[in-house]
Amino acid sequence: MSEPEKSENIPDESAGKGKEIPNGGNPAKTKEDFDLAAIYVSDAQYNRNIFFDTSPQAVRLYLLYNHWFLKVLLYFFILVDLSLAVFEEPAVFPLPIWATMLVELLCLLVFTIRLVHYAKVIPRDKFWKDPKNICIIVILMLTLADMIIYGALKATNYYALRWSRVLRPLLLVNVTEGRQLRRAFRSIRNALPQIFYVFLLFMFSVLIFSLMALKLLGKRGLKTIDGAPYFTNYLEIVFDLYVLVTTANSPDVMMPAYNASFLFAIFFIMYILINTYIFMSVFLAVVYNNYKKYLKEEVRQLVRAKRHKMVRAFAVLQEQREEGGGPVVTQANWNQVVRLVQPDISNAHRELLWSVCDDNNQGSIGKVAFVQLADLLNIEVITLKSRPHPFHSVCPAFYLSAPSRLLCRMVQHRAFVIVYDIIILVNAIFIGLDEENPMIANSEWVFLALYLLEILLKLYVFEPRAFFSRHSFWNWFDTIIVISALIATIVNSAMKSSGGYTSRQILDIVFILRVLRLIRVVDSIKRFRTIINTLIRIGPAILTFGQLIIVVYYVFAMVGMELFKGKVKFYEKDSGNPAGAYCGNPLLQGTDFAKLNYCKNNFNNVVSSFILLVELTVVNQWHVLSSGFAAVTHVSARIFFILFHILVVIVIINIFVAFVLEAFFVEYSVDKSDLQTSLEKKIEELELAVEQEKMQDNLVNAMETIDNDLGTGQSPAANKPSLMFKIASKRYRTVDALLQRMFEADLDPEDFAESDDPEAQTNGNFANPTFSSV
Amino acid sequence: MSEPEKSENIPDESAGKGKEIPNGGNPAKTKEDFDLAAIYVSDAQYNRNIFFDTSPQAVRLYLLYNHWFLKVLLYFFILVDLSLAVFEEPAVFPLPIWATMLVELLCLLVFTIRLVHYAKVIPRDKFWKDPKNICIIVILMLTLADMIIYGALKATNYYALRWSRVLRPLLLVNVTEGRQLRRAFRSIRNALPQIFYVFLLFMFSVLIFSLMALKLLGKRGLKTIDGAPYFTNYLEIVFDLYVLVTTANSPDVMMPAYNASFLFAIFFIMYILINTYIFMSVFLAVVYNNYKKYLKEEVRQLVRAKRHKMVRAFAVLQEQREEGGGPVVTQANWNQVVRLVQPDISNAHRELLWSVCDDNNQGSIGKVAFVQLADLLNIEVITLKSRPHPFHSVCPAFYLSAPSRLLCRMVQHRAFVIVYDIIILVNAIFIGLDEENPMIANSEWVFLALYLLEILLKLYVFEPRAFFSRHSFWNWFDTIIVISALIATIVNSAMKSSGGYTSRQILDIVFILRVLRLIRVVDSIKRFRTIINTLIRIGPAILTFGQLIIVVYYVFAMVGMELFKGKVKFYEKDSGNPAGAYCGNPLLQGTDFAKLNYCKNNFNNVVSSFILLVELTVVNQWHVLSSGFAAVTHVSARIFFILFHILVVIVIINIFVAFVLEAFFVEYSVDKSDLQTSLEKKIEELELAVEQEKMQDNLVNAMETIDNDLGTGQSPAANKPSLMFKIASKRYRTVDALLQRMFEADLDPEDFAESDDPEAQTNGNFANPTFSSV
Repeated sequence: MSEPEKSENIPDESAGKGKEIPNGGNPAKTKEDFDLAAIYVSDAQYNRNIFFDTSPQAVRLYLLYNHWFLKVLLYFFILVDLSLAVFEEPAVFPLPIWATMLVELLCLLVFTIRLVHYAKVIPRDKFWKDPKNICIIVILMLTLADMIIYGALKATNYYALRWSRVLRPLLLVNVTEGRQLRRAFRSIRNALPQIFYVFLLFMFSVLIFSLMALKLLGKRGLKTIDGAPYFTNYLEIVFDLYVLVTTANSPDVMMPAYNASFLFAIFFIMYILINTYIFMSVFLAVVYNNYKKYLKEEVRQLVRAKRHKMVRAFAVLQEQREEGGGPVVTQANWNQVVRLVQPDISNAHRELLWSVCDDNNQGSIGKVAFVQLADLLNIEVITLKSRPHPFHSVCPAFYLSAPSRLLCRMVQHRAFVIVYDIIILVNAIFIGLDEENPMIANSEWVFLALYLLEILLKLYVFEPRAFFSRHSFWNWFDTIIVISALIATIVNSAMKSSGGYTSRQILDIVFILRVLRLIRVVDSIKRFRTIINTLIRIGPAILTFGQLIIVVYYVFAMVGMELFKGKVKFYEKDSGNPAGAYCGNPLLQGTDFAKLNYCKNNFNNVVSSFILLVELTVVNQWHVLSSGFAAVTHVSARIFFILFHILVVIVIINIFVAFVLEAFFVEYSVDKSDLQTSLEKKIEELELAVEQEKMQDNLVNAMETIDNDLGTGQSPAANKPSLMFKIASKRYRTVDALLQRMFEADLDPEDFAESDDPEAQTNGNFANPTFSSV
Repeated sequence: MSEPEKSENIPDESAGKGKEIPNGGNPAKTKEDFDLAAIYVSDAQYNRNIFFDTSPQAVRLYLLYNHWFLKVLLYFFILVDLSLAVFEEPAVFPLPIWATMLVELLCLLVFTIRLVHYAKVIPRDKFWKDPKNICIIVILMLTLADMIIYGALKATNYYALRWSRVLRPLLLVNVTEGRQLRRAFRSIRNALPQIFYVFLLFMFSVLIFSLMALKLLGKRGLKTIDGAPYFTNYLEIVFDLYVLVTTANSPDVMMPAYNASFLFAIFFIMYILINTYIFMSVFLAVVYNNYKKYLKEEVRQLVRAKRHKMVRAFAVLQEQREEGGGPVVTQANWNQVVRLVQPDISNAHRELLWSVCDDNNQGSIGKVAFVQLADLLNIEVITLKSRPHPFHSVCPAFYLSAPSRLLCRMVQHRAFVIVYDIIILVNAIFIGLDEENPMIANSEWVFLALYLLEILLKLYVFEPRAFFSRHSFWNWFDTIIVISALIATIVNSAMKSSGGYTSRQILDIVFILRVLRLIRVVDSIKRFRTIINTLIRIGPAILTFGQLIIVVYYVFAMVGMELFKGKVKFYEKDSGNPAGAYCGNPLLQGTDFAKLNYCKNNFNNVVSSFILLVELTVVNQWHVLSSGFAAVTHVSARIFFILFHILVVIVIINIFVAFVLEAFFVEYSVDKSDLQTSLEKKIEELELAVEQEKMQDNLVNAMETIDNDLGTGQSPAANKPSLMFKIASKRYRTVDALLQRMFEADLDPEDFAESDDPEAQTNGNFANPTFSSV
């Protein structure tokens, strides 16, 4: 990121309406112009939709605002704020109130400063019109008020509630950087009405079936396995049948009726067919369809906003080349901007991009070609530098000798991979055997030596900087795992031989590292690699769901802790406390909850709350958990659990599944975009392309996108250019790029062609697609 | 269906290559020509792909072969054959061996006759090349051999096994009519390789995690809740973790480790995240994607074959109208064929179709227009006849009097619906109350009277034949439910007052009918109606999955019965037999299976086997069931249950979900087809359209496709034509039509335009897309 610098004031309009000014005489562009253009391009590239003030001062502040360090700092303080729950009452590690309060005050201060900074960047009216700013202000003020009340009440020894803690995760949603998360929440909110109608119909079906069950089974005097009356209370039946939809109590809920007559099984099978299979599929379909629909609309707006920003950048940089011709941007100016936007881009790469834009070698490009820049920058091009191996430079005679070349050929041979795959499999068997047998224990040293040898051999054959390049995932993986295992094993045996004592923790680490090493075998099988690569590619997008889940979990954990803390207690088995049998609460005596020894599933601190919520998300036995907590409080406590089920399992998990489905379909079906194709063609034209076959055969090139050296000194392609390019065709720099790719087929290209028409201009405020409330 | 009639021999080639014969002089078409053309059209309409012989004799036999009665008879005998399992050892209702054998022989005879009939219809070489015929012959012969061996062994009192019973459901797949089912199986088979690779990767992940669990937890001396050692046996761990993927043993399997340290919970959460959420979504994605891909290819072939058949029909009927013009089909010939293909079509409807084909009123149509016919016939057009109400004809003075007209207006008013919705809701509350209270019991008569009054009032207002028309689902539903409830209630109270004794069965029926009545309320809410209608529309396609599931269930039930019959016994609770506590098998003492009282979940007869398989499909507690059966036989019995889980839950259920998703997306997104649009336009041109608003406001028109009378005597539209049309736009006559609709957007129209090119001609054998083995 370029740093802000002093500059003169330029009129506000020059950006927005620049293209209407007859820019005659082509005055030289100032530093401020480049800064402004660079910001527009960078915003377009990363889909930042901030309607910033174009005054040089604001631009400078805006550059600072976007600095990566400030963003990391912000997220760090959000993390600190969220993790305060670990130290607050009910705490995992208790801290005095004043300490947590002080840290929270610090966090609030940071958030306030960040907000003030933001307020200085964008025009005042825009700031107050944006709900997410209002939201943050309200959260900050409520938190402060709550802290004061809580402190005062605690000081006077009254009962006090830190209710504002549920607001904390909303900060994650409402900070400027929470774009993806806001979009996900918006899509969910928009899909809610449709989901609601299906849910109503589904509930109607559950109620009707419950009524039928009451009439059919209530009067028969059947007993459950505990001897309780079976299906006599309508509300209990509704709950039981709702649980049956989640399949958690199947087939137990059916057994008493089935034992009475097999005809009743038909009732339950009908129920499961309709409510579990058909309705749950319909839920997935409705959630999927609506989520996709709204997300598509959002992505369309995003693309339109991106075009708009690029047009503005063009307006800043444009020059009138000759009479009659349209405005253009010269190569020098273009270079300047690209350098500002992406300082780490290599000259060769930049020249490649220019040659794609300026297809006819005219030295300048028009608006249409310029607008592509944001997308071009988002295509990950891998630069392959052909460096000679250090040994080759130091002592070429030795490195190019016949034995050395034979060794290189051996290591690069397919058989080398197969041999090491077999070693890994043998190792797997040895790991499975009892490690207390000294023969087995010592074999570990052999395997470690073999793995180390493999890495050293590869380092001998391949150029080290290429071997440890940014994209060589498996090389990094191997080396780290093997080195760590070596260290841990040495430490472990040193401790053992010196004190005769074994640390359980170190042994655990050794075991985990040993098993992780086996994963490498996946990389040797091409089919597996494809699937894994797809998963890695959609990884960043899945992280958005991670945030979504954490927001929801956090809110439920806070509420759950207030409702249920201390109601269920866990006693260590060896404590000998008889209360351990009923989790320290006599109300639980004889319940399934106590019988199944679920005492540790409680809301007594934030960590166990989160684990409990994961268990509830997995669904199985959630009725036992909810009944347990209902037993120690009130039957209405079940509402908390049902709400959680509806929100997390029916809505969010379905959206997650929908997203994975869609991402996989894109991987399977979509080809490269036009822009990628033209970039690739240009690379081929310039004869800078890397041969595909070579890439695939090579062991260390296992990951699709890799930028190591291919010429190993004795490579026959010695007279090839020393710099080569390859497109990481399916790697997405940003989640937005993946989304845009997902809906590309459905996006109307003509929608964006006229991004500079008056309508789009006046509509310039799609800058901040707003998100008001959660 | 038209009946076969005597006819002369015409050359084989006239059909296939008819268009190449210069059909100069236009000789009058013979009866045989029309029969042949009608068969081609009918085959195209119903997507029958039978490459029949075109000799008149074969054509006659083919017409007979397609007769609905013979098809129903075939399916009846398949049903009889399948349901023999109920009477065979181990039987629900035991019958002597000679009786079931005799019935089975009869079934085999019927299947043989049907096959011989088929052999007479199609050319000999085609018959022997078709794997499904070979398949049936093999099944029949194996069954016969098995019956002989079984009979002989039984007669000599040896142990005998009816292994050929697993082959029975394959008949469902291999009969000519099992087209949809074969297609589903083919799609699954084609998708298997892809699914297999994901499954391997998934199993690799499970194995790695199991190894890690063994190393981390095996040596800690932890105990499960039963006091057994925890995670010490590798194979047990693999099974436990496989079960955890299905979530059936969550969180129990985690609890011992979690109780030891909350850090182990991280291990299990990672496991669930990767294997349950990510891998299961990937499974759905892969199954969905591959199933869709292959199904699309099948549908493409289907559409191509359909075009091809229509071209053949055209070749039979074509005439050379004038020099220079292409061959055409005259209206008279066209009428004749349509009458043969669909005898029940009304003249008006036929004329409408003709006017769509012959858009320019030329009296004859070319090939392109003719080819549309099959699709046109598949569009369900509803003919609305404007008949006066019988009362209106009998005593118009009374029926048109002011009070009578007021009544009619009242019944048609929106408030009438609301009043009855409220009555239904009140009724629901009364049903929920205790029916032994005499006030409540008597209220039932009031409600019955009210419902009866509603039906009578509607019959007074609406024309009865329209009220009970084919598409008036809710009218039929109401009337049947109310009348049945009336009869059952009368019978019940008669029995009660005469003998003072209440039949539980009749009471059950009364209760079910009462509750079913409440469903009617759904119909009043438009949003619900849309969802329900979609479900009803995809209903027939879901039936294909029903068959698929039954085939798989049947095979597993047969194998399961041989493996596990009699191992687990169920004793009635009041029998007092102490063996009931451990299901009559001491090996089960102390197991969860016995503790949870699962004794009735056994393979002792075909009905309980099917119910058990449903429970296994629902997944929950399947590990308890499989462990139970493993306990009474051998640990390897688990393989049976794991296989069932992989096949049914991972493959078939995912395909079902994929299908419902796809069908819902079609409903949400796809508009009417071009052909439907042109038909609708023609209807509007001819001013025969029904006003949409009227259709929707009207209570009895609740179902989208309804053909009742709208003019009720006093209708203002009295001078409208007495016959009106409406397209049941989204109703699919056949499953194929739905499938074609689903993939319409992806099907290349140009693919089909050249259906008469030489390639397609030689490829004429896509007639029987073959399916060899299951």
